[in-house]
Amino acid sequence: MKIPVIEVFGPTIQGEGMVIGRKTMFVRTAGCDYSCSWCDSKFTWDGTEKHHIQMMEAEEIMQDLREKGADQFGHVTISGGNPGLLPQIDQLIDILHDHDLEVALETQGSRWQTWFTKIDDLTLSPKPPSSGMKTNYQTLDFIIDSLKQKQRGKCSLKVVIFNEDDLGYAENIHQRYPDVSLYLQVGNDEITMDNDQALSLYLLQKYEELIDQVMVSTILKDVRVLPQLHTFLWGNKRGV
Amino acid sequence: MKIPVIEVFGPTIQGEGMVIGRKTMFVRTAGCDYSCSWCDSKFTWDGTEKHHIQMMEAEEIMQDLREKGADQFGHVTISGGNPGLLPQIDQLIDILHDHDLEVALETQGSRWQTWFTKIDDLTLSPKPPSSGMKTNYQTLDFIIDSLKQKQRGKCSLKVVIFNEDDLGYAENIHQRYPDVSLYLQVGNDEITMDNDQALSLYLLQKYEELIDQVMVSTILKDVRVLPQLHTFLWGNKRGV
Ligand code: SF4
Ligand code: SF4
Repeated sequence: MKIPVIEVFGPTIQGEGMVIGRKTMFVRTAGCDYSCSWCDSKFTWDGTEKHHIQMMEAEEIMQDLREKGADQFGHVTISGGNPGLLPQIDQLIDILHDHDLEVALETQGSRWQTWFTKIDDLTLSPKPPSSGMKTNYQTLDFIIDSLKQKQRGKCSLKVVIFNEDDLGYAENIHQRYPDVSLYLQVGNDEITMDNDQALSLYLLQKYEELIDQVMVSTILKDVRVLPQLHTFLWGNKRGV
Repeated sequence: MKIPVIEVFGPTIQGEGMVIGRKTMFVRTAGCDYSCSWCDSKFTWDGTEKHHIQMMEAEEIMQDLREKGADQFGHVTISGGNPGLLPQIDQLIDILHDHDLEVALETQGSRWQTWFTKIDDLTLSPKPPSSGMKTNYQTLDFIIDSLKQKQRGKCSLKVVIFNEDDLGYAENIHQRYPDVSLYLQVGNDEITMDNDQALSLYLLQKYEELIDQVMVSTILKDVRVLPQLHTFLWGNKRGV
């Protein structure tokens, strides 16, 4: 079964989350079951780039990765959209592993796929209230339980924070899943700003505000607070 | 045996390395067997703050941490100077663990201590040529071998990069210890600049240059490339 791919790029660094800074290639799949208000990759699901979606076999994706990254990479990140919608990612993971590549994947955790257990660095990023989406805790519980029993790699939770409500949501998530590493990420509410320096300085200020809030919390003790490094570096540009 | 402590502060975030972003308290010990040209904590060993050094029992350090961080933290970072010079850190680690706190520590790896095996997040940061120091590979080999056999926590290597020679040094380190996670960190060669915004933008540019170099390397495949987030946030200020 073919995979709907909207872009393949790299090598670059992973700018956020559990493998922040890691040299990696990106494969971005099309399609999402959510429509977050602040989604920074709407082009993967809103139809505006429909003509860019390529239906690719896993083997073709591997070839494309080699063409672009030659022998310069050891890690591939699958993002979206929501790649968790696609059962056929299974074959891609196997091929990547056959090539001795580690595999990271990010999904909001709205659907379970058996291949989640094979991902080396799995990020579950349930969406806080500001997104306008509702978390299905039954599904998320099931995913986290299943991973606890069967995952070969590592798993983390990531929550993007735009406001106080989101921080409260993150506290709930942390209390519900205390054994899963939690990453808090500064929300970028300026996704159309094109002055890169101004954006960096603005987001640094937001980052500092988030740090201040988290530092005084007695609930959010064992967490990491991170920015999106790619936004500091390349602003809102894509494919870097 | 008392521990020479130069500052205790936090909670704040760990700005660099393997637990980047982690909410943590800092305990900084005095004294170093190196004198790196670009050392950003010379005050720990150059005598200028001799009057600030307090000889503290491990239990007193624990009290100080609780006074400053109350119940807001779950992680403590021991840095220096070189805390690896001090056998008596052993007791401090045990007390921190008794309080259910995770412990991170950074040392250049010039001396072995048996308590290295108890550290949860151990960073070995051998110094590249630009530092003016010479790596004792016999010691470093011994440390890494011993950790492989006995460490309970995690271990990583971190190399700060100021120039091409340093990058070559990092490649050697990576080839010598391929199984140990390697973090490359942008060197800050403006440790006296006091315009924070200018410093952030300058270091972002240096970070991007380092990324560009690492991305084309076929040796540095499985690495992370990171900045010092605290410098982006707080410039060259101390104790934040
Ligand atoms: S889940 Fe992710 S890709 Fe889907 S709408 Fe939300 S932010 Fe966008
Ligand atoms: S080893 Fe660290 S503390 Fe010691 S001189 Fe070098 S940079 Fe400074």
